[in-house]
Amino acid sequence: MMRQFSCEVISLRFLLHVARNPSRLLLLLIGWLLVAPSATAQEALASWNDGPAKKSLLEFVERVTREGSTDFVPQPERIAVFDNDGTLWPENPMPFQLAFALDRVQAKAAADPKLATDPMVQAAIAGDFGKLLEGPRHEGLLRIVALTHAGMTVEQFEADVRAWLKTAKHPRFSQPYTSLTYRPMQEVLTLLRSHGFKTFIVSGGGADFMRVWSEEVYGIPPEQVVGSTSRTQWELRDGVPQLIKTLDHLFIDDKEGKPVGIQQFIGRRPIACFGNSDGDLAMLQYTTLGNSRPSFGMIVHHTDDQREYAYDAMPKSSGKLVEAIQEARRRGWTVVDMKNDWRTVFGP
Amino acid sequence: MMRQFSCEVISLRFLLHVARNPSRLLLLLIGWLLVAPSATAQEALASWNDGPAKKSLLEFVERVTREGSTDFVPQPERIAVFDNDGTLWPENPMPFQLAFALDRVQAKAAADPKLATDPMVQAAIAGDFGKLLEGPRHEGLLRIVALTHAGMTVEQFEADVRAWLKTAKHPRFSQPYTSLTYRPMQEVLTLLRSHGFKTFIVSGGGADFMRVWSEEVYGIPPEQVVGSTSRTQWELRDGVPQLIKTLDHLFIDDKEGKPVGIQQFIGRRPIACFGNSDGDLAMLQYTTLGNSRPSFGMIVHHTDDQREYAYDAMPKSSGKLVEAIQEARRRGWTVVDMKNDWRTVFGP
Repeated sequence: MMRQFSCEVISLRFLLHVARNPSRLLLLLIGWLLVAPSATAQEALASWNDGPAKKSLLEFVERVTREGSTDFVPQPERIAVFDNDGTLWPENPMPFQLAFALDRVQAKAAADPKLATDPMVQAAIAGDFGKLLEGPRHEGLLRIVALTHAGMTVEQFEADVRAWLKTAKHPRFSQPYTSLTYRPMQEVLTLLRSHGFKTFIVSGGGADFMRVWSEEVYGIPPEQVVGSTSRTQWELRDGVPQLIKTLDHLFIDDKEGKPVGIQQFIGRRPIACFGNSDGDLAMLQYTTLGNSRPSFGMIVHHTDDQREYAYDAMPKSSGKLVEAIQEARRRGWTVVDMKNDWRTVFGP
Repeated sequence: MMRQFSCEVISLRFLLHVARNPSRLLLLLIGWLLVAPSATAQEALASWNDGPAKKSLLEFVERVTREGSTDFVPQPERIAVFDNDGTLWPENPMPFQLAFALDRVQAKAAADPKLATDPMVQAAIAGDFGKLLEGPRHEGLLRIVALTHAGMTVEQFEADVRAWLKTAKHPRFSQPYTSLTYRPMQEVLTLLRSHGFKTFIVSGGGADFMRVWSEEVYGIPPEQVVGSTSRTQWELRDGVPQLIKTLDHLFIDDKEGKPVGIQQFIGRRPIACFGNSDGDLAMLQYTTLGNSRPSFGMIVHHTDDQREYAYDAMPKSSGKLVEAIQEARRRGWTVVDMKNDWRTVFGP
């Protein structure tokens, strides 16, 4: 296996030292092999610039996977959880699932003149989010969700999502949404899996929405997607089983819901957690505070308005990041500076 | 790899035929290698007697895993679901989790004299199930479940289950409950996993109860256990995250709840389903009816009162099996006759 020597190490002084003490070369090499992140791990993060974020991630992976290390974590317990919107792909100018819902409502209204007279449908088509978010329970938004995410079979919904993904494009990047995943984060998923981690999505987005494409896009199978859910209704139609989507027992997998969802769906505490907003704070806490295992928290900070977006507490943006970034310093969570830490943002 | 030839094949007539046509031996051998279940698969089911149940299972596994077969199912879609009580371990004289709840209530009442005056606690200690099951919502039983399964952290509950499993023994077999799994079914789990299947428990039992020991006992990790659940409550106690068990949003993963739970927790349709009672009927239907993939259903029929129990529609037994066994014939589900199909019932 190749190892990379930094410039300082291969200095003239070093070479002179080795020439005088050849027996020490072997010791140095053994030491290097024991402590250095492997070249393969380094190469796996090719879209990351060298810096503290990349370094801390590689060191954590090395530490918990090296046999004999006091921090070694057995493979079945290497659970890593990833927020999706803003962590694995963008969440601007709006969460992509909301774009799906608005496009679907527009298509439905075009086919059904009666539906087009619904004030909330009109607000959705006009992009009047203020109206959709009115009231303590955001009745307008719930109405749009009900129209686009309930009342059909699971298979019909899946077909709706697939059809939308084939044609819809991001307004700024003019790309299909599923080609806008963050390449550096895809590399993290691959790195962790190649080190025996099981990778899960834990997102406020709908589980059924993400499960349609999670395996193809992230290599994360449907059964490793934790998201917002509601109960389906079982029916036998002419002897054929049908599961009808409803909004009953709606579970919002966000904020305090994230650790609750992790417990309910995964059943064990993660050792690595990746998020980007205050919605991920509770899951970062659950992963790293009072965990008997070594643990790792990472926050993707959107600092790059040239290549992606720059935001944290801007009033109109999704994914407010205020509390979590303050707590990151106290807790030792790694904060990614997207602009400086990522060599590339998108791309295969 | 060794292959087994049956007695009929190695007959004198066959040997004479080969002696006259030596070139056909190669063709015969190639044909055999292509169609026969491998010796390893046969050996994996060592506790099964040869018969239609064993044969149909081996043929299904062969059919969906042989590259190039028209019925080949890609590895990620090989989802197999197993009921637990009565399918992987016994459910008599009562579901083992109920034995846990009764033992826990007794211990709690011994430590808390006020609790000992609760009429439902008294009924539980007296084994008066009639009283516990009174009323449409079985308030007595719910009270016992609340006392033993809620109001503590997830870790405290796990410790309760572990402590109980260490000392509790089955009243008839005088063995720890976790050593009473069915050896033939353990072999099915191993066989399927060695053929690229992902094995899940889908049980009416509590997910948190089963997840404590499922990995050790069945090799099924907590994240592959679907069971009855309720939402935990997130708290930060002195800055340390706690998840408190409640009975809110109780989801009973039984009957029609099983396909609902499969959809919500796994997110894709299984191709193999193993159950033993009418509580598994909906999940057997969901697996096998209208599935675009080849599929397999198996029902464990308890016919062995010498080595285990014999029951189906007996009024006092758990796990009534009336509708599902009728439907099995129509649907081509395999019915296991425990007495005749299983060489061994328990044991490592």
